[in-house]
Amino acid sequence: MSKQFKFMLDESNIPKAWYNVNADMPVHLAPVLHPATKKPVNPDSPSPLPMALTSQEVSTERWIEIPEPIRDIYKLWRPTPMFRAHRLERMLDTPAHIYYKHEGVSPVGSHKANTAVAQAFYNKEAGTKSLTTETGAGQWGSALAMACHFFNLACQVYMVKVSYHQKPYRRILMQSYGAEVYASPSDRTAYGRSVLKSDPDCPGSLGIAVSEAIEAAVMSRGTARLAVGGAHNFVMLHQSIIGLEALKQMEMADEYPDTIIACAGSGSNLGGFSYPFLNEALTQGRQTRFIAVEPAACPTMTKGRYTFDYSDTGALAPIMKMYTLGHRFVPPGIHAAGLRYHGMAPSVSALVANGYIEARAVLQVPAFNAAVQFARAEGILPAPESGHAIRVAIDEALRCKETGEAKVIAFCLSGHGHFDMTAYQAYHEGALQDYAYPEEAINKALAELPEVPEFYRGEGSPFPD
Amino acid sequence: MSKQFKFMLDESNIPKAWYNVNADMPVHLAPVLHPATKKPVNPDSPSPLPMALTSQEVSTERWIEIPEPIRDIYKLWRPTPMFRAHRLERMLDTPAHIYYKHEGVSPVGSHKANTAVAQAFYNKEAGTKSLTTETGAGQWGSALAMACHFFNLACQVYMVKVSYHQKPYRRILMQSYGAEVYASPSDRTAYGRSVLKSDPDCPGSLGIAVSEAIEAAVMSRGTARLAVGGAHNFVMLHQSIIGLEALKQMEMADEYPDTIIACAGSGSNLGGFSYPFLNEALTQGRQTRFIAVEPAACPTMTKGRYTFDYSDTGALAPIMKMYTLGHRFVPPGIHAAGLRYHGMAPSVSALVANGYIEARAVLQVPAFNAAVQFARAEGILPAPESGHAIRVAIDEALRCKETGEAKVIAFCLSGHGHFDMTAYQAYHEGALQDYAYPEEAINKALAELPEVPEFYRGEGSPFPD
Repeated sequence: MSKQFKFMLDESNIPKAWYNVNADMPVHLAPVLHPATKKPVNPDSPSPLPMALTSQEVSTERWIEIPEPIRDIYKLWRPTPMFRAHRLERMLDTPAHIYYKHEGVSPVGSHKANTAVAQAFYNKEAGTKSLTTETGAGQWGSALAMACHFFNLACQVYMVKVSYHQKPYRRILMQSYGAEVYASPSDRTAYGRSVLKSDPDCPGSLGIAVSEAIEAAVMSRGTARLAVGGAHNFVMLHQSIIGLEALKQMEMADEYPDTIIACAGSGSNLGGFSYPFLNEALTQGRQTRFIAVEPAACPTMTKGRYTFDYSDTGALAPIMKMYTLGHRFVPPGIHAAGLRYHGMAPSVSALVANGYIEARAVLQVPAFNAAVQFARAEGILPAPESGHAIRVAIDEALRCKETGEAKVIAFCLSGHGHFDMTAYQAYHEGALQDYAYPEEAINKALAELPEVPEFYRGEGSPFPD
Repeated sequence: MSKQFKFMLDESNIPKAWYNVNADMPVHLAPVLHPATKKPVNPDSPSPLPMALTSQEVSTERWIEIPEPIRDIYKLWRPTPMFRAHRLERMLDTPAHIYYKHEGVSPVGSHKANTAVAQAFYNKEAGTKSLTTETGAGQWGSALAMACHFFNLACQVYMVKVSYHQKPYRRILMQSYGAEVYASPSDRTAYGRSVLKSDPDCPGSLGIAVSEAIEAAVMSRGTARLAVGGAHNFVMLHQSIIGLEALKQMEMADEYPDTIIACAGSGSNLGGFSYPFLNEALTQGRQTRFIAVEPAACPTMTKGRYTFDYSDTGALAPIMKMYTLGHRFVPPGIHAAGLRYHGMAPSVSALVANGYIEARAVLQVPAFNAAVQFARAEGILPAPESGHAIRVAIDEALRCKETGEAKVIAFCLSGHGHFDMTAYQAYHEGALQDYAYPEEAINKALAELPEVPEFYRGEGSPFPD
């Protein structure tokens, strides 16, 4: 066998512009509503985000230039490699061609660095001194910690308390980049204190940590601003670099994906990888299936409601129309902490609701089975989040084995699992649980959705047709 | 700034042959002696290694072809990138040009995979069913575990007990690849039981784990063979791929190193990175300094003796002429576990003894200072072992700042530090110790060197002039 395994681009081929899916959105996006007034947010009104990012949030420009200082930092690890998984194909004995884009080669081990660097840059330009943010297992927090150091910004991370204690390695990584890390709920914010008052042993959640990060930014009176790891349009924009590179790399391989797969927590890995291919589907008529994979324990798209909800637990963040399990839903403690979010990016939600993207839910143990099978075939130990995408990629490849179709399957390996070894230990010891669909908790949380004026419940859109 | 940060080679540029420094060795190498007879080992006599490797051990062929199945696996991560450390240079405000070869991109995070894959391949060819080996912090063990799975070999790893318990993440990684991992000293070998009998709480050492791995291989009656992570000539040979790629990459950068730096535990990272450049120095008259960096707590080259000693604690392994602190020396518990070895590769030792390579010892805390400074400049969190090389690279770059010389400094980043986060935690908490040179323990261990017949103490060599 003398086949090509890796498709590499030279750093001079890092895209010069991000792709903005909102230029081509085939469906209307509802407006984002202010959490207090429940009226559409005015992009020019005061925000814990810098103007450059609020502008990107509502932009419908197709291509937005990547500033040179961001591209220079991207060069530390980008373009990331695209692999043909020859060894996995052979292990599965499938006629399918499997490709994966390896975002785990970033210094912090995941795709989160792509938007972290961009947000740190725009904040530095805007005179911000310090960024606050939330993190679950710490993929996003460590990405932002690194990015802040690059731009000489202070960084405060509210880390979900159960992860803070159970997964100390990412906390230490953040501290190595110079960030301050607090276990959330903390006594540093009014919202954190209110949570601790009613439940002193509260293990925390992403939604709570988001609320604390927002409050810390707002109360700083302008010295600190907020950074966000997912869901927002500008995050999808920055992550589009994944798919833009992958498009070129598939061209190098002289193939085109029939199926595009990525895991989805709040949607940035999925959107980043798939939107440039979706553009091809919408504008060039390419026939491609898009599959978003979520955990069965937090089945936002497969069991949630497509409606208006807060993007945080404390109801301090904007109300967005999205798939949601209810902002007060606390998912079971699966190890793919990056997928434990009650909501989903509005753009991903709209595309799922309108049939452009399929959603699929995967149980924890089958996801780990796939992750270990992948590691033994390809060498790379994936993040538990990525294991969800791998599960579906393997399932699709096995289906090809039955049908004899040589389909081209491409998935995004969102990150490596080096900081998730306790999860693998639990897996090897047979101690992993397959949490059933938490129906009762979801129903309870869905009963607490915000009341939104009837007007905005329609398909009104801030974007022109 | 629009400079080139990464110098990448396409996988078609993976070298087709390894470079064997023994073809060009400017000094005589003493013969390797049998541990019992103390006579030169006959390469054809029974060995726990397969014939292909014992042949490579004594070969003086300059180029040894890399078999296609090995190159195919190398393609999963090789060629590794060579970086110009623009950001570190700016942070140091130095006129020096700093380059680093990043071996941490292998799936197991270090250069150890280069020889692991080769040893697994040759063993598979020889009909071996199972490989036994030792490991300290687990870099080597996890590399072999992955390689064994690729070639469908069983893998038994004797892991130094203190690391087995204190650094569980690499153990879990090995288990994820399907290896069996035992805390050493164990009750699985006669030698392990003898150690436990005299010291039930013995924390283990690399030398003890080597003895157990040898015994397990020998007692298996041919089903299991031994794999070794360092010191041997064939390990240096396989690791030469690092320097061969780096040579091409320096050509791409249109520069040539004035100074080559690598950490040295048993010498495979140093040898692998530097020997192809040494070849240039010897055959093309290139003027290059070579610096081997070791920990002050285990100062084999700077405080040890260049003489004959066992390569393991139990005196089961061959006697080699090398720098040694005495085979019974147990180094203090520094976090760079890969550098805690009493001996040094015979080829490296001979080159140091004859002035071709300089040796330098570095304290633990300054090495971590350098590692964190590097992480904040370049993003990548280095292994503590690599931190030693970075310390000297930074020191050399700062010297250039004083002299104004724009020297080209190239070092090998042997691996990333994702599995060493407890060490970084200790560093951040100010809990790291700077172990002084353990003079008394070294003197005691050096008093227990084996008696070797006078004849072999000379400069006799199995290699022709």
